[in-house]
Amino acid sequence: MSTRKNEVGIIGLGEIPYGEHWDLSLRELASLAIEVAFDSVQKGGFDKGDVGALFVGNAAAEMFVGQGHVNALVADAAGLLNVPSFRIEAADASGAAALRAAYLAVKSGMIDTAMVVGVEKMWDQTSNPRVTSILANTMLDHDWEVEPGLTYTSAFAMMARAYFEEFGVNKEHLSAVPEKNHFNATLNPNAHFKRAFTREQVLKSQIVADPLGLLDCSPVTDGASVVILAADEKIPEYSDSPVWIKGSGQGQDYLALHSRESLTTFEAVKKAAKMAFKQAGITNPREQVDVIEAHDSFSIAELIALESMGFYQPGKAALATFEGETSLNGSLPVSPSGGLKAKGHPLGATGVGQIVELCLQLLGKAGKRQIKDAKVGVAQSLGGTGATALVNVLTIDE
Amino acid sequence: MSTRKNEVGIIGLGEIPYGEHWDLSLRELASLAIEVAFDSVQKGGFDKGDVGALFVGNAAAEMFVGQGHVNALVADAAGLLNVPSFRIEAADASGAAALRAAYLAVKSGMIDTAMVVGVEKMWDQTSNPRVTSILANTMLDHDWEVEPGLTYTSAFAMMARAYFEEFGVNKEHLSAVPEKNHFNATLNPNAHFKRAFTREQVLKSQIVADPLGLLDCSPVTDGASVVILAADEKIPEYSDSPVWIKGSGQGQDYLALHSRESLTTFEAVKKAAKMAFKQAGITNPREQVDVIEAHDSFSIAELIALESMGFYQPGKAALATFEGETSLNGSLPVSPSGGLKAKGHPLGATGVGQIVELCLQLLGKAGKRQIKDAKVGVAQSLGGTGATALVNVLTIDE
Repeated sequence: MSTRKNEVGIIGLGEIPYGEHWDLSLRELASLAIEVAFDSVQKGGFDKGDVGALFVGNAAAEMFVGQGHVNALVADAAGLLNVPSFRIEAADASGAAALRAAYLAVKSGMIDTAMVVGVEKMWDQTSNPRVTSILANTMLDHDWEVEPGLTYTSAFAMMARAYFEEFGVNKEHLSAVPEKNHFNATLNPNAHFKRAFTREQVLKSQIVADPLGLLDCSPVTDGASVVILAADEKIPEYSDSPVWIKGSGQGQDYLALHSRESLTTFEAVKKAAKMAFKQAGITNPREQVDVIEAHDSFSIAELIALESMGFYQPGKAALATFEGETSLNGSLPVSPSGGLKAKGHPLGATGVGQIVELCLQLLGKAGKRQIKDAKVGVAQSLGGTGATALVNVLTIDE
Repeated sequence: MSTRKNEVGIIGLGEIPYGEHWDLSLRELASLAIEVAFDSVQKGGFDKGDVGALFVGNAAAEMFVGQGHVNALVADAAGLLNVPSFRIEAADASGAAALRAAYLAVKSGMIDTAMVVGVEKMWDQTSNPRVTSILANTMLDHDWEVEPGLTYTSAFAMMARAYFEEFGVNKEHLSAVPEKNHFNATLNPNAHFKRAFTREQVLKSQIVADPLGLLDCSPVTDGASVVILAADEKIPEYSDSPVWIKGSGQGQDYLALHSRESLTTFEAVKKAAKMAFKQAGITNPREQVDVIEAHDSFSIAELIALESMGFYQPGKAALATFEGETSLNGSLPVSPSGGLKAKGHPLGATGVGQIVELCLQLLGKAGKRQIKDAKVGVAQSLGGTGATALVNVLTIDE
């Protein structure tokens, strides 16, 4: 008789510092993070033979380094040839989508454990001259947005303009988001940019797509993050302190911006949060959630996401951030890792990296950026301009 | 109380004829096949609101048409914005991998139904001049195979040479594979090439990579195929004649050919078949299986796959095919659809298309290519040169 309660927990974490890794290939980025994950399992004894399936989150290896068949590349690099492997692509929500797919597979009862690898190799001499084009093709609607000239940044710039107009806030408020995230990153050894910027510096940074400046935009980053999932009945073999996935939600929206009802709401995030919060029994997110990792691919995205998840009323996240509520010592800390802006945004790795950060926070292992008594964490990931979104709720045993 | 027995069945099928669809975009190919699938559900009443999740198999939209975020594109095109969507990539096993991922998700009990869409847009003015390069990058190990000059075809040519040497067969035997598959395609309205070729014509076709000629190679094809899965307890609402997924297996092998022990065996297919057959209770595949859809990306691949699944001893599939055993009226019909060679090989669609064909066969709806009394079907899919493989076993109620 199975004693499975059908809960899924996290028993291992691996990550390599995000950054420019000119000396590491896609396969090497993945392998290094996987090694760290194997070594991290509390009781040891978890090795390749114990992995039930491999889920790889990767957004655009085809375009960055000319490599498809990414599931096989990572399986090969990790020496995981005796289990099925899947590569999940959902633009820069790929890592979060891979986590969710793995979660569903473990929950199905067909496998006991799963390894989730998020990885992206973005710094490459061949593809770098085309990075704006690659990012647009990765995120947007090629026929209806990219061909007419929209870029990844300009799409979010339109959202920022609409947000300013609708809610009467301005770029000064917006600048508080990167300021906060860059400060947090100074406390994260795995962050790409461990450097603080003042609100003034953010405000005056070179314009990329008005009103967004360079310091509103997440960087081009290489990285790999890994988590190991296990079914509840298996967990005691490997760990006495698992982090539980209590709720997992995903939502979709139209791919092209022109089809959406609003530029200042992420419908997909709303749907994902509703699904995840319902499953996790979260009825009052503002009170019940201790820490959030949000998807600030651009500064404006963090504000809209917090509102779409229900942490703030529409238009209210800007002032709250400006006043420090989402700072490390605020009442609702958001992206203690440094977020996409400063920890970095290696597309397919990012969503898994958010889970790594939340696990460290819930386990009390987040060092100088530790949120005190964090028991419930929420990870929010966005694909492109919001056609795909994922929200996952993590908890620890009391 | 749930009455679920944890079985998963297929209740709907959709496909558009494979071919060169210059007038149809990626999103249009998908939408058209999805419409057919909705209309195919026996009792009607199955509409967008009944789909629990969307799984998209697509190999290389990034490289063919500059479109990532493929899950969102297809969800948008299909009007499926209220359910989660996943894009699965595993080279040209993407469709089969998407089917397996959907199967696991339904089996998990978290969703009751899933739509699986395999789609690939390969005929495109911009990418066609680069098709050899795109196919290599989609299938092979970029750093260790593509950069040094290996192509998709030359990799299989090496397998064919090794097979000839090891088993003392020759190109004449090999030519029986495309001859058979091209004949079968003349009976399939959805086939790309509804044209027969004699063994002699195959033998003398222009050499692409010695010993493989043009007629040993699957074509560049646009296509989309769709299946709808449902949990057993839901099926009676929609269908009295589901096709059951009785076994699903997946295997992996090294990505680069140089790492493998043998060029004349697909280890990944062996593993996938073992897993699927065990689950389905198939102990004697030669006796228990009535029809197979095999992955003949190249003629040699069909022979090696049949042997790796255990239908023939190593080296024996060549003569068996030569003597007609795998023909439509033979004792073990293989690829009645026309196979990848003649039905066509729209990479991400192919694995789903194999399932469509098997369903038609098991339901007695395969028209002029109907295999009499087919009750058990096996679909075998290969990613690239064999680093990923899937085997699925389908049956109908007796």
